[in-house]
Amino acid sequence: MMTPPEISTAQLAAALKAFAGAIGAANVFSTDEDRTDYGDHFAADESRHLPSAALAPKTVQEVQAIVRIANQYKVPLWPISRGKNFGYGGSAPVLKGSVVLDLSRMKAIEVDPDNGTVLVEPGVGFFDLHDYLQRHKLPLWLSVPGNSWGSVAGNALDRGVGYTPYGDHSAQICGLEVVLPTGEIVRTGMGAMQGSPNWQLYRNGFGPGWDQMFCQSNFGIVTKLGLWLMPEPEAVIGADFEFDKPEDLGWVIDTIMPLRREGLIRQSPSLGNWLRSAAVMTTRDQWTQDKGPLGEDVVNAIRKRFNIGWWSVQIRFYGPLEIAEASLDRLKHAFNGKPVLAIKPARWVKGDPPEGSPFSGVPVSFPLANANWYGGRGGHIGYSPVLPPKGDLAMDQFKRTYELYRQYGIDYHASFAMGERSLTNVNQVLFDKDNPEMMKRVDGFFHALVGDARAHGYGEYRTHIDYMDLVASTYDFGDGALRRLNERVKDALDPNGILAPGKSGIWPGRQRETKK
Amino acid sequence: MMTPPEISTAQLAAALKAFAGAIGAANVFSTDEDRTDYGDHFAADESRHLPSAALAPKTVQEVQAIVRIANQYKVPLWPISRGKNFGYGGSAPVLKGSVVLDLSRMKAIEVDPDNGTVLVEPGVGFFDLHDYLQRHKLPLWLSVPGNSWGSVAGNALDRGVGYTPYGDHSAQICGLEVVLPTGEIVRTGMGAMQGSPNWQLYRNGFGPGWDQMFCQSNFGIVTKLGLWLMPEPEAVIGADFEFDKPEDLGWVIDTIMPLRREGLIRQSPSLGNWLRSAAVMTTRDQWTQDKGPLGEDVVNAIRKRFNIGWWSVQIRFYGPLEIAEASLDRLKHAFNGKPVLAIKPARWVKGDPPEGSPFSGVPVSFPLANANWYGGRGGHIGYSPVLPPKGDLAMDQFKRTYELYRQYGIDYHASFAMGERSLTNVNQVLFDKDNPEMMKRVDGFFHALVGDARAHGYGEYRTHIDYMDLVASTYDFGDGALRRLNERVKDALDPNGILAPGKSGIWPGRQRETKK
Repeated sequence: MMTPPEISTAQLAAALKAFAGAIGAANVFSTDEDRTDYGDHFAADESRHLPSAALAPKTVQEVQAIVRIANQYKVPLWPISRGKNFGYGGSAPVLKGSVVLDLSRMKAIEVDPDNGTVLVEPGVGFFDLHDYLQRHKLPLWLSVPGNSWGSVAGNALDRGVGYTPYGDHSAQICGLEVVLPTGEIVRTGMGAMQGSPNWQLYRNGFGPGWDQMFCQSNFGIVTKLGLWLMPEPEAVIGADFEFDKPEDLGWVIDTIMPLRREGLIRQSPSLGNWLRSAAVMTTRDQWTQDKGPLGEDVVNAIRKRFNIGWWSVQIRFYGPLEIAEASLDRLKHAFNGKPVLAIKPARWVKGDPPEGSPFSGVPVSFPLANANWYGGRGGHIGYSPVLPPKGDLAMDQFKRTYELYRQYGIDYHASFAMGERSLTNVNQVLFDKDNPEMMKRVDGFFHALVGDARAHGYGEYRTHIDYMDLVASTYDFGDGALRRLNERVKDALDPNGILAPGKSGIWPGRQRETKK
Repeated sequence: MMTPPEISTAQLAAALKAFAGAIGAANVFSTDEDRTDYGDHFAADESRHLPSAALAPKTVQEVQAIVRIANQYKVPLWPISRGKNFGYGGSAPVLKGSVVLDLSRMKAIEVDPDNGTVLVEPGVGFFDLHDYLQRHKLPLWLSVPGNSWGSVAGNALDRGVGYTPYGDHSAQICGLEVVLPTGEIVRTGMGAMQGSPNWQLYRNGFGPGWDQMFCQSNFGIVTKLGLWLMPEPEAVIGADFEFDKPEDLGWVIDTIMPLRREGLIRQSPSLGNWLRSAAVMTTRDQWTQDKGPLGEDVVNAIRKRFNIGWWSVQIRFYGPLEIAEASLDRLKHAFNGKPVLAIKPARWVKGDPPEGSPFSGVPVSFPLANANWYGGRGGHIGYSPVLPPKGDLAMDQFKRTYELYRQYGIDYHASFAMGERSLTNVNQVLFDKDNPEMMKRVDGFFHALVGDARAHGYGEYRTHIDYMDLVASTYDFGDGALRRLNERVKDALDPNGILAPGKSGIWPGRQRETKK
C-alpha cells in the first residue's frame, strides 16, 4: 500500500476507514487499479505522482466531513474537479501518495437564463452544460477549451482558455462556494450575504475580492462556481487566415494586436503553426520514417495535403450582423497589401443551421488527437510563457524555442494566443511514451525552455505538476516575496497542510523545508 | 494630544519622533490644524474619525521604515493615496487616533504607450495623469470618476467607477507593488518575476491572483499600481436620453440592459434622477424656502429651466466611426415607439476639437458642486446597494427608497448604474452640516436604507467609514464566514494589527472583541 510522506500504512488505513464511514465504502477507491486510474497518463513518469487512494463525495457536507478527517489523520488531499487537466497532470497529485478528492459526482447546474449566468458544481463537464443549455433551449453559449471532457469549474480555476469573447475563463468567474482546509464553508462576493440574488451578478462584493485567490491555489476546495455565459449572438462572422512563412509571425502579430487592444477583436486569436493544425489530422509516420528533424519537403507535403499555412489564425466577430461585418471589413483592411496566403471566410447568422465548432461554444475533443502524432502511447506537456504583444519579440521567441526544439529532437508545436495586452506562447511538447530514448530528452528540454523564458523575463502562466516548483522559482522578485506571502496565507488557512501540498509551488509548513 | 486606543501620549510622542527620524520632521504633521485637515469634512460628526497625526513619505523605502516603526510602537496607520474619497471618509481613518499615512507625495508615472498601460504611484491624481498624457501627446484616454481630484490608484483600489468602457476601475488593475504590514515588499502578477516586461500586460501571473485582495482591504499598502488605459478611439458617438416620469425607470432599464449584457454597450450607463443633474447647477433655496418635501411644481420648474427629464441617461459608443454609428442605430431602434422625452445626440470624431467631457476621459470636479444643494457647509454620504438588472426590481427599489427619503425629509438623489449583469443604485445623501436638525436625521436614514437593502438581499459595494461595520455585518452567510476568513488573513499578515483597523469591517485581533 502506498502512503503519503510521514504517514504509516496503519494511519492511512484508519483514515480510509473513517472516509468510508463518512461517504460510504463504495466511494473510496484504493486498489492498485484505482491508483493507476487516478494517475497522470500523459506524464513522462507516472509513478512519481501516483495517489494512494481516491474519494468521491457527492455533497458539500461530505466534502466537509472528508476535510475534517484529513485534518485528524494529517492526510493530504488533492482535489480534482473531473481530472481531465491533460498536459498539466490529469488527476494526479503533485505529492505522491496524496488522496485524490474526486468531485466529479457533484454535478448540479443552476442557470439564470435572463442574466446569462450559471452556478456549477465541479463535476459538471462542458458536454454536460452544453447538453443542459440545448435541452432547455437556452440562448446562451459556452466558451469551451480544446479538451471539453474537462470540468467547467476546474478549467476556470486552472485558468483555462476558450475560443469566444468569454475565452478567458477565470475572468468570467462570479462568486464561489469554497470549503476551507479547516472545513468551514465560505461564499465569496455577493454570496457572502445569505440569500442574495446577486451572487452570480456582481463580482466584487464588499471588501477584498477572493475569487482569483482560489484559482491555481491550494487555499480551499471550490464546491460551487459562478460563471458568466455569453448571450447567443446574432451572428458570428470572421475568417481563417493562412500565412506561408515562419517569418510572417512578426508582422501578423503587429497587424492584429492593435485591433485586439482597441477591442475590435474580443476573442483571443491564436496563431498556430502548421503542426498544431496537422497533428490532429494525421500522424508523423504517414509522412516520414526518419526520426530526425522534419525536412522542409515533409512539412510542405503535409501543408499541401491539408491546405494549411505555416501559421494559421482564426478570427471571429460576435454580435449584430452589420456590426460583425463592419468589424471583419476593418480586419481585412488591416491586412490589405500584405502577403496573406489564403483567407477562408466563416459566416453564421442566427437561423442558419448550427455551425458546430468551438467558435460557437460547441464542446470538442478532437484537439486531443495530437497526442497520437508520434505513435505509441502519446502524451504531451504544456509549456506556456507569457510575453509582450510585439511582433519582433514573438519572432525572437519563436526562433529561440524553435532552435531548442531541434536541439532536443522534438517537432515544433506552438501557437501565440493574443490577449488584450499579452501573448501566450502555448507549446504542446508532444511525445511517445513508448519511446524511452525520446522520453529521456523531455525533462532537459523543459528545463531549457523554462530557463530561456526566465532569461527574458517571461513567466509561465500554468504548468505541469512535475514543474510547479521550477516555474514558481522563476517568480523571484524580492527573493520570492510572493511565494512567502502565499505561504503565510497557506499556513493561516491550512495549519495541518492537508490541502494540495505543492500546488503552484505552494507548500505547507511541514513540507516546506524538505522540499527546498 | 489625541492618541489611538491603548496608546499613551508618551508612546505616541516617541513614535512620532521615530517617524520624524525616518522621513524628516517636515513630513510629520501633528498640530490640531493638521488633524483637522486630515479629517472627513463631509462627515456628520468629524470628531469621530480624527487622526492623531499624519506622515507623508516620499519613497517606498520610507513607507517600509514607517511600517516597521508602527509595528514597534503598535501605532495604527491609515493609508490614503490622496485622501479625496469624499462621501466615503475623505482622508479620515475608521479608528479615531490612527496616524494617517499620506502617500500623496509619491507621484511617479510610467506609461507604456505601445501597450496602453500605466504604472502609477498613489499620489498621482487624474489631473496629473491627464496632463502627463497631453504633454507627451499620447493617444491614451483615462477613465475618470466624478471627483477627479482623487488618486488614480486610490480610486481603483476603492472600486471607483468612471464613464468610459474602462469605467470599472478595479477591473483595469494589472499588477501591484505592496508593502505588507510587516514591511516586506511584494509585487503581484508578473511583477513577481524580477525584471519581467509583463507586469502591466498580463493579470494572472502564476498561482493565486492577489490584485483584488488589496482592494477595499487592509492587507497591505499599495505603493505602485498598474492600470490599463483605453487607446484613443476613432469616434465617440451616442446620445443623452431624457424621460419624463418616475415610472419610466423600469422599462428603460429593460430596454438598455440586453444591449449592455450582449456587449453592444460597453460603458456602464447611469440613469440618474433630475436632482443628480440639477444639484450641480443650482441650489435648493433658489426654488423654495419650504423645508418639507419638494412639491411637484418645484421639481417641474427646475426640470423646465434646465431642460432635463425626471430620469436621464447618457450612452456612448467608442470605436471605429461606422461601428459606433451602427451601434447607436441599434440602441435607437430599441427605443422605437417608446415614450422617450428627448434624445440629445453626442458626436465626436478624431480630428474634431476635444469634446472635453468625462466621456472622453477629461478629468472633472463639477459633480462635487452637488454638496451645495442645501446651502451651508454641504456634504453627502454615498449609499450604493447592488441589485439584479431588472426593471421591476429597480422600480421597487426606487419606490421603497424614495419613500424612505421622504420619511427622513431628504431630497431624493440617485442613479442606477448598469453593469454587465447588475445595477448599482448609487445614492448621494446630500445634507447641510450647518443644519443640526437635519444632521440628526442622517444616521437613522442610513440605517433604514441599509436595513431595507439587506431585507432584499442587496449589499452595498462601498460605504462611508462610519458604516463599514454595519455594511460588513449584512454579509452574513455562514454567520459571517467571509469576515472570519478575512480576519484569519488579517492576523497572519498583520500580527500587530497596525494597518487600517476597521477598513471594510476587518478588525485586527486586538480590537476585534471590543468592537463587536
